[in-house]
Amino acid sequence: MATAYITRRERFSSAHRLFKPELSDNENYELFGDCSHPNWHGHNYELFVTVKGAVNPELGYVINLKKVSTIIRKHVISKLDHRNVNIDVDFMSGVLATTENLAIYIWKELEPRLHELSVELHCIKIKETENNFVEYYGE
Amino acid sequence: MATAYITRRERFSSAHRLFKPELSDNENYELFGDCSHPNWHGHNYELFVTVKGAVNPELGYVINLKKVSTIIRKHVISKLDHRNVNIDVDFMSGVLATTENLAIYIWKELEPRLHELSVELHCIKIKETENNFVEYYGE
Amino acid sequence: MATAYITRRERFSSAHRLFKPELSDNENYELFGDCSHPNWHGHNYELFVTVKGAVNPELGYVINLKKVSTIIRKHVISKLDHRNVNIDVDFMSGVLATTENLAIYIWKELEPRLHELSVELHCIKIKETENNFVEYYGE
Amino acid sequence: MATAYITRRERFSSAHRLFKPELSDNENYELFGDCSHPNWHGHNYELFVTVKGAVNPELGYVINLKKVSTIIRKHVISKLDHRNVNIDVDFMSGVLATTENLAIYIWKELEPRLHELSVELHCIKIKETENNFVEYYGE
Amino acid sequence: MATAYITRRERFSSAHRLFKPELSDNENYELFGDCSHPNWHGHNYELFVTVKGAVNPELGYVINLKKVSTIIRKHVISKLDHRNVNIDVDFMSGVLATTENLAIYIWKELEPRLHELSVELHCIKIKETENNFVEYYGE
Amino acid sequence: MATAYITRRERFSSAHRLFKPELSDNENYELFGDCSHPNWHGHNYELFVTVKGAVNPELGYVINLKKVSTIIRKHVISKLDHRNVNIDVDFMSGVLATTENLAIYIWKELEPRLHELSVELHCIKIKETENNFVEYYGE
Repeated sequence: MATAYITRRERFSSAHRLFKPELSDNENYELFGDCSHPNWHGHNYELFVTVKGAVNPELGYVINLKKVSTIIRKHVISKLDHRNVNIDVDFMSGVLATTENLAIYIWKELEPRLHELSVELHCIKIKETENNFVEYYGE
Repeated sequence: MATAYITRRERFSSAHRLFKPELSDNENYELFGDCSHPNWHGHNYELFVTVKGAVNPELGYVINLKKVSTIIRKHVISKLDHRNVNIDVDFMSGVLATTENLAIYIWKELEPRLHELSVELHCIKIKETENNFVEYYGE
Repeated sequence: MATAYITRRERFSSAHRLFKPELSDNENYELFGDCSHPNWHGHNYELFVTVKGAVNPELGYVINLKKVSTIIRKHVISKLDHRNVNIDVDFMSGVLATTENLAIYIWKELEPRLHELSVELHCIKIKETENNFVEYYGE
Repeated sequence: MATAYITRRERFSSAHRLFKPELSDNENYELFGDCSHPNWHGHNYELFVTVKGAVNPELGYVINLKKVSTIIRKHVISKLDHRNVNIDVDFMSGVLATTENLAIYIWKELEPRLHELSVELHCIKIKETENNFVEYYGE
Repeated sequence: MATAYITRRERFSSAHRLFKPELSDNENYELFGDCSHPNWHGHNYELFVTVKGAVNPELGYVINLKKVSTIIRKHVISKLDHRNVNIDVDFMSGVLATTENLAIYIWKELEPRLHELSVELHCIKIKETENNFVEYYGE
Repeated sequence: MATAYITRRERFSSAHRLFKPELSDNENYELFGDCSHPNWHGHNYELFVTVKGAVNPELGYVINLKKVSTIIRKHVISKLDHRNVNIDVDFMSGVLATTENLAIYIWKELEPRLHELSVELHCIKIKETENNFVEYYGE
């Protein structure tokens, strides 16, 4: 049986700020630059979820990608889109709102739920801007 | 002499919220939907500034586009990028932070400064997401 | 009051064929090339609907773009997406399934419905491929 | 000698339908959703063919990418573009027309022919829409 | 009869330099900045040719876009692609190799030839980079 | 500690030519096609630099991507942008100006400098056109 990697792109538009609450605004600016601006800023994030699995010979696909999309929207997009990453998102609570952490904690949200569908989560990729992106492979 | 339209794209990543302060959160939600989320959200905005002018026969261009870029960055991008449209931007003070108003008030900032360079501002176009954009022609 | 042009992008994936039923396959091939292949082919179409209107000074927008999107999806996308333009689409019945005609007949579907929302339809733009697109302004 | 991966993008616009002929339309709809619409639908597919090889120190390249392009166009694009994946494509005969199977069977078409050019096929990636894509590495 | 605007995108990759031969390198640098670098630089240019015409009610299109593409490739792309705009291109001889002039002189090449096909050239748009583009409407 | 891959995109617009000086123009044309045109041609290159590293639990990131960008711009972009790859670029001196070699020699420039920042260079990817790109992983 052949193994394929299938990817679903979803999008969310969120506010965020990079800062450590125990530091002053100036100290945060040293560490995080403009991204620590106290009144927030935001992005149109693009999220790419790649799952890996055997191509079912009866159905010709790894999984109906609509099922993957439904899980991503329910557990990730609905919590992030038109929200504030630092304030509103349960799975980012107490976590620095970097793109790296978004990728890691989205992995934690999706991995067990995709496992139930018998597919393996392979990669979470997040594009923050057209020039910056992060990939996380669960390790 | 030929007339050409030249366009410079610049980008800014900002937080914003659509709301009228005299209304309740629920009333704002009725009018603006998710865009009125109280804890802000944000976008990677793309700004397209189009100027119109005669092609200088000695130089072969309408204007050195770097001059246009410098003006946009100084008077618009530096105020919006990694900032909060509602709170931080002098020329948006007291104005609803819609994409339409961004286009109108960016026009007001740029039009006289481009006029000094002997080019005519033709259009301000702002892409808020890959699915939504606004054009304003100064009328 | 300022006038702005706002655009909503929607997408549909459809099969189609360019042909005149009274002609032979060869004659159709002469006129339409590969696009007349008898077993159909298809595209990911991108539809850009631009409306024009006064920017409401109380609300800062021409119209809530979600209303525009809802109308487009109900009256256009739901009929075209994952369908056959020649066979399945009531408003394309008896019409050659060219991109030009798609633009013209989508205009007919949307113009009165957008008029009811007090905005003026300005342009229907359809991208058939990354290299080919059509614009129609209702004239 | 250094090893590099080089990728050529080609495109094809095709009609297809996901269905199992032994099932009813309703049963197919259960399994494949809108993609099983009986009158076909279609896509602008993007195909990315990645080959791996040593960088020839005399010529500075792995292979002249034009040779790769010629093979892809002759054996894959000419059969798929402006055609129906289910009906017209010899190497997809009797196979469910999913993106996964397209990737697997395009691999089978290209792998031996690229091997003759002394490069190793590394990945077939197919973008079906801007939100969905599949990668296959030959395993 | 309805009027539509149809656009064909073509691409060319060329070297160029902005400079006036009667000036020194320093003087040219003052006027044109990095674009006057004496050893040339280059771009992947995107060319968008928009023609305007009545939609033929018998055929459903303004013109077979393949005919437009053939003319553009024969008279423009074949002269510019993988060439030097300043040295190799007959219709740019003695002209400053700016994007504005490319648009104006491509218009001169294409306008009479499209006129022979009974369509009206409406706009030449050239994207030099993802941030800079020029439009010319023949006036 | 989690490991993430972060990527920074930068761009440069350069002239180049593929040729071996010991061969005639005709012989070079045999080997390299249009890319060996003697008067140069050029591209808007896109450079994607991917680094790999542990996500710092105190800061939530692998490295401040601005530091990566600064190094790329100082040691690579400033030498290539608006320059001639064959003539002007010290680290490409005596090397065939292919995309493969660009990737390999940019790796050599960046790898030790990124190592000093305690991140590991993972991949250099260069897009020469929208249809052609190269990846190099340092092996």
